[in-house]
Amino acid sequence: MYLLATTFVHVFHFLLSLFQGDYRVIGHPEERNDRQVLHEEWARYSAFYKYQPIDLVRKYFGEKIGLYFAWLGVYTQLLIPASIVGIIVFGYGVATVDTNIPSLEMCDERLNFTMCPLCDGACDFWHLSTACGTARASHLFDNPATVFFAIFMSLWAVLFLEHWKRRQISLSFSWDLTGIEEDEVFTITNTRNTLKHTHTFKHGTLSHTNPITPKKLTWKDRLPGYCINVSSILFMFGLTFSAVFGVIIYRITVSALMAMSPDPEIKSNVRVTVTATAVMINLVVILILDEIYGAVAVWLTELEIPKTETNFEERLILKAFLLKFMNAYAPIFYVAFFKGRFAGRPGSYVYVFNDYRMEECAPGGCLIELCIQLSIIMLGKQLIQNNIFEIGIPKLKKFVRALKEKESKVQEKQEERPPQQWNLDYALAPFEGLTPEYMEMIIQFGFVSLFVASFPLAPLFALLNNVIEIRLDAKKFVTELRRPVATRAKDIGVWYNILSGMGKFSVIINAFVISFTSDFIPRLVYQYMYSQTGTMHGFIDHTLSYFNVSNFKQGTAPQNSEHGDITVCRYKDYREPPWSADAYQFSKQYWCVLAARLAFVILFQNLVMFLSLVVAWVIPDVPKTIVEQLKREKKLLVDLFLQEEKEKFQLIQSLFAKDASVPPGQSLFLYTLRSVYDGGTICQCVTLLESLIDPSLSYSLPLRCSVKHSLSC
Amino acid sequence: MYLLATTFVHVFHFLLSLFQGDYRVIGHPEERNDRQVLHEEWARYSAFYKYQPIDLVRKYFGEKIGLYFAWLGVYTQLLIPASIVGIIVFGYGVATVDTNIPSLEMCDERLNFTMCPLCDGACDFWHLSTACGTARASHLFDNPATVFFAIFMSLWAVLFLEHWKRRQISLSFSWDLTGIEEDEVFTITNTRNTLKHTHTFKHGTLSHTNPITPKKLTWKDRLPGYCINVSSILFMFGLTFSAVFGVIIYRITVSALMAMSPDPEIKSNVRVTVTATAVMINLVVILILDEIYGAVAVWLTELEIPKTETNFEERLILKAFLLKFMNAYAPIFYVAFFKGRFAGRPGSYVYVFNDYRMEECAPGGCLIELCIQLSIIMLGKQLIQNNIFEIGIPKLKKFVRALKEKESKVQEKQEERPPQQWNLDYALAPFEGLTPEYMEMIIQFGFVSLFVASFPLAPLFALLNNVIEIRLDAKKFVTELRRPVATRAKDIGVWYNILSGMGKFSVIINAFVISFTSDFIPRLVYQYMYSQTGTMHGFIDHTLSYFNVSNFKQGTAPQNSEHGDITVCRYKDYREPPWSADAYQFSKQYWCVLAARLAFVILFQNLVMFLSLVVAWVIPDVPKTIVEQLKREKKLLVDLFLQEEKEKFQLIQSLFAKDASVPPGQSLFLYTLRSVYDGGTICQCVTLLESLIDPSLSYSLPLRCSVKHSLSC
Repeated sequence: MYLLATTFVHVFHFLLSLFQGDYRVIGHPEERNDRQVLHEEWARYSAFYKYQPIDLVRKYFGEKIGLYFAWLGVYTQLLIPASIVGIIVFGYGVATVDTNIPSLEMCDERLNFTMCPLCDGACDFWHLSTACGTARASHLFDNPATVFFAIFMSLWAVLFLEHWKRRQISLSFSWDLTGIEEDEVFTITNTRNTLKHTHTFKHGTLSHTNPITPKKLTWKDRLPGYCINVSSILFMFGLTFSAVFGVIIYRITVSALMAMSPDPEIKSNVRVTVTATAVMINLVVILILDEIYGAVAVWLTELEIPKTETNFEERLILKAFLLKFMNAYAPIFYVAFFKGRFAGRPGSYVYVFNDYRMEECAPGGCLIELCIQLSIIMLGKQLIQNNIFEIGIPKLKKFVRALKEKESKVQEKQEERPPQQWNLDYALAPFEGLTPEYMEMIIQFGFVSLFVASFPLAPLFALLNNVIEIRLDAKKFVTELRRPVATRAKDIGVWYNILSGMGKFSVIINAFVISFTSDFIPRLVYQYMYSQTGTMHGFIDHTLSYFNVSNFKQGTAPQNSEHGDITVCRYKDYREPPWSADAYQFSKQYWCVLAARLAFVILFQNLVMFLSLVVAWVIPDVPKTIVEQLKREKKLLVDLFLQEEKEKFQLIQSLFAKDASVPPGQSLFLYTLRSVYDGGTICQCVTLLESLIDPSLSYSLPLRCSVKHSLSC
Repeated sequence: MYLLATTFVHVFHFLLSLFQGDYRVIGHPEERNDRQVLHEEWARYSAFYKYQPIDLVRKYFGEKIGLYFAWLGVYTQLLIPASIVGIIVFGYGVATVDTNIPSLEMCDERLNFTMCPLCDGACDFWHLSTACGTARASHLFDNPATVFFAIFMSLWAVLFLEHWKRRQISLSFSWDLTGIEEDEVFTITNTRNTLKHTHTFKHGTLSHTNPITPKKLTWKDRLPGYCINVSSILFMFGLTFSAVFGVIIYRITVSALMAMSPDPEIKSNVRVTVTATAVMINLVVILILDEIYGAVAVWLTELEIPKTETNFEERLILKAFLLKFMNAYAPIFYVAFFKGRFAGRPGSYVYVFNDYRMEECAPGGCLIELCIQLSIIMLGKQLIQNNIFEIGIPKLKKFVRALKEKESKVQEKQEERPPQQWNLDYALAPFEGLTPEYMEMIIQFGFVSLFVASFPLAPLFALLNNVIEIRLDAKKFVTELRRPVATRAKDIGVWYNILSGMGKFSVIINAFVISFTSDFIPRLVYQYMYSQTGTMHGFIDHTLSYFNVSNFKQGTAPQNSEHGDITVCRYKDYREPPWSADAYQFSKQYWCVLAARLAFVILFQNLVMFLSLVVAWVIPDVPKTIVEQLKREKKLLVDLFLQEEKEKFQLIQSLFAKDASVPPGQSLFLYTLRSVYDGGTICQCVTLLESLIDPSLSYSLPLRCSVKHSLSC
């Protein structure tokens, strides 16, 4: 299905390019410029298996974009092992589905568990064996290998971050980015602010020109902005939650209405129809809110009036991330941790709007629902965002622009020279920053790390997407956008912190998914505490509680049951049976399983955190080759300085008489020079340099320090 | 008691100094040298309230020792707020002890809980109200404020580390330590190794002299060393555990024997006597093993043949820390998490050596035992180590040395000049590294962080100790030891990692102490789930299970009971009563409380970790003043270089004719100079410098980078 979709992307792309005709970069065939090289070697889908020419990308687009593609490359590369392990884990599920006792027991019609009805009145009792399909599907994702995979992926996330750290240091070394941060802060023109603080760096002099207001903003000026900020973010959180809640209501009401329908065809497909449509609605809501939140985040950040461009970008990213993360993950969190937990029990269901019962999970467990939700949102988001937002809309815009231009050309009747490259490029869309590109990838990183315990194929889908994504982005940058102004960047900035934070967060989320959403812990507890034989036989019976049909509330019992004389039905929960003293209270098993689940969370979290620390500690941040090269260079540099100073001194000495009259400052300087080759080390030179500095400045000691440092003695 | 002990230290010290007579530093009164200033202003107990003259310490002893005292100062300073909060928390316990319902209920004789006997046969049934004292004492340390204090102390640990990071950066800035790390690695003479790799740094030339063997060691050479290492460490772990186990056996047997004694006087004091003597034995074992482990760690590290001195020190520290940490904390861990958990229940006790029942905690809970254990080990270790190992033994050694010298003097009959300072100093003990000093403090840091939930006064005791410790160490360095060779150090090295690791570890330990050792969670569960009135009334009854006396095994029932017709006795556990279907099994409450305990651990750990991240994120690593000063200095430096190069050029220009013949290298150099003041920035100078470098070296790009960086363009 995914490959089909990517083929669709190809064809769509090709058709559009045919339609518009200006897809290729114009240039003389004999002189292949950088852009043409990039276009031919890099920005093609057929080059997907090649390493990216990162140095050329950096040369043409600047460090910031170069770093983005380098990061994307490292991420995609590291997705390969994760995908392979994910496929193996999934394969394990497929291979063991026919020998898995719980799912076999669920499918066994002889066991004949009569389940309590799924809705009030209209629904009948049903046999558990009819849910055989979901039980088998559930095993594909809910098996012991998943636990291993969750641990593996947590360590993978740490490994990825460590690997990227090394790659970044290598790049900043070969791209000459080690010392730029401080200067960058000043060379900023924050064009978006209403109050413009312009700092221009003119040929060696640092001139601060504040054209509108040099007044410093106090907290009083900023307070309203912050208030609007906080309240807007809270409002949008509310919006997200109400969207999720709306979909829940949709699911509850529609399934209740469909269950009441007399048509048996409709009745039998209730769950599938409702789940599918609900996820679609979720997806559409997510995509729409995503665009809205992007715009709102920009507006809110402008209200804050940050001082520098870096500052602006950081705040914008954090806000946009917070909002988009909530938006993309709220429905998934709901399915993973809340769905089915507030449904009540037969005879005492929880109702919303007094009429509709809260929804429960499918009989196979909540994990399979989480898996469906996750895969549809992940794939849908990637396909739709790639196709519509990244290809479709820009193409459309371009087409509209081209149309307009043609009109104006017809009016103006320009000279009929063939259009120059700059004219063609001017018609391209402007570059609007890397934030959307990063954001898309970070949200995807969330899918492969946060809930990976429920969907081991996520890394594979991410990998397939990214192989295309790299070339898609490359194509976009080379052919669809005006060449962006090259900006330097030391690193990927706040994105690294977000990635690292997500990696940490994923540990606890995966621990909870395994222990609370999957049936892993109940199975373990059953096997080692309750099973008579030490095997899983009887597990399904153990997880089902008894309900006395006579305890149904007025009007909630099935109206016309096909099952004749039923006195007790079963439901999935750990509660006391009707004949117990405290009927329908949580049973001892419930608390026992709960304790085991919580103990697992503690164990898992601390084990993974410990292993992550070990991994991060074992992998050094700076690659060994670079450490050695830095040392060699330092030595060369010292030699060079020494040699030079020696030459200079010889020159001067040969010209000066012994008792030539020189001003005091000069003589001091000479003394400094002399000490260099007398003593033999540059260090001494430096130590003496301090005597040149006016002592009244009282910087002598720290300045000596700085000088020494910079000359690396 | 503590103040009394410190007074004892003073007096002891004073007496010793009187005894030996050479306590003061000899010197002419008119010229107060650094050592005298240090002795008068710093190395005195009466200066305890003063800030330390850290810069002078650094000047006299070198950076490494300076950093130690700076670190100790920061730690001691930050212990002040922790002590104050600890006292308040303890005060809260004292203030609420009379209104605390559980302890009131335990002391209430009307409630009349008949408890099962504490030992087989010889012991009688007893009334819970007789354990009133421990219940009240327990409340002092086991109250809701403790939970707050544990959170506070976890954040305190983070705050301390962040604060130290800032202080370290300030110091390394003002002490000119920023760029030294790489050079340090080479300037090492590892005198302890059997294979000596000597690298000497001679006046500007880096000469590597490997006098014995230049052969690189392969893994085959190292393998035996590593094997011995691992097996020795495992053996010593075993030793520590068997020491702990031995003390447990001692406690079990002695209390059993004392309980059988006919003397009622002995019988009534069983618990106090046994606990006190056992802790004393523990303390002695810890102190002895500490010294042994210190020596073993040195031996093991020598077997590894580390390459550099830094490497040697790091490995030694890690090993010594591991061993000493285990040694100091094993008995405490036992009391906190294991004691009383394997004792079984009446009618089915767990026996060791078939005869002796496993020990249980006191009726007031395990927390009070943990508290006693902790306070005695902490205080005992500090007092004994301070007095005997840090003052006593060195004094004794000195005394022995002095005696020997006198003998030799008598023999040699030297000239009778008054002894010079260097003669006197030669008689002092040699300096043996800072490791023991740091180790002592780190183990103490463990007491104030790891188990602080059980003993809120720990920071106060640590503070009192450290106020003395600083001056004690100062005195030792100034008057008791030969002046150590000054060594540079960028930071406190691996100790920082150990501290940070302990801070992280303390979070989970405190979570477990609060939820499993203290009664905090059972009380909460009772109040919100089982209490009829919503108050704590009836809590004690709820925690006690019933035991039918007829179920005692043969010969384990009390032989001659003063309590006549007892059919049921109570014991502290959550188990089903005898009249239940599954008598003596864990009850639903047990699992419920267990789940609550585990949930609390998860909540506590994640909350504290999150808050720690926030604290670490809010406090910037580099103080703002330093950031600004660095910027200013950079600017000054650039100005200076510019000015100098300009002067040089003018000088040269005034002397050279336009067409003077200069070698090619020279002219290039001149061009470089010219570009400097033509362009106006030092950057251009640097960019052109690269043309001087031989291109065949192929370092040009990275070298330009380094040069540029070091000149800060």
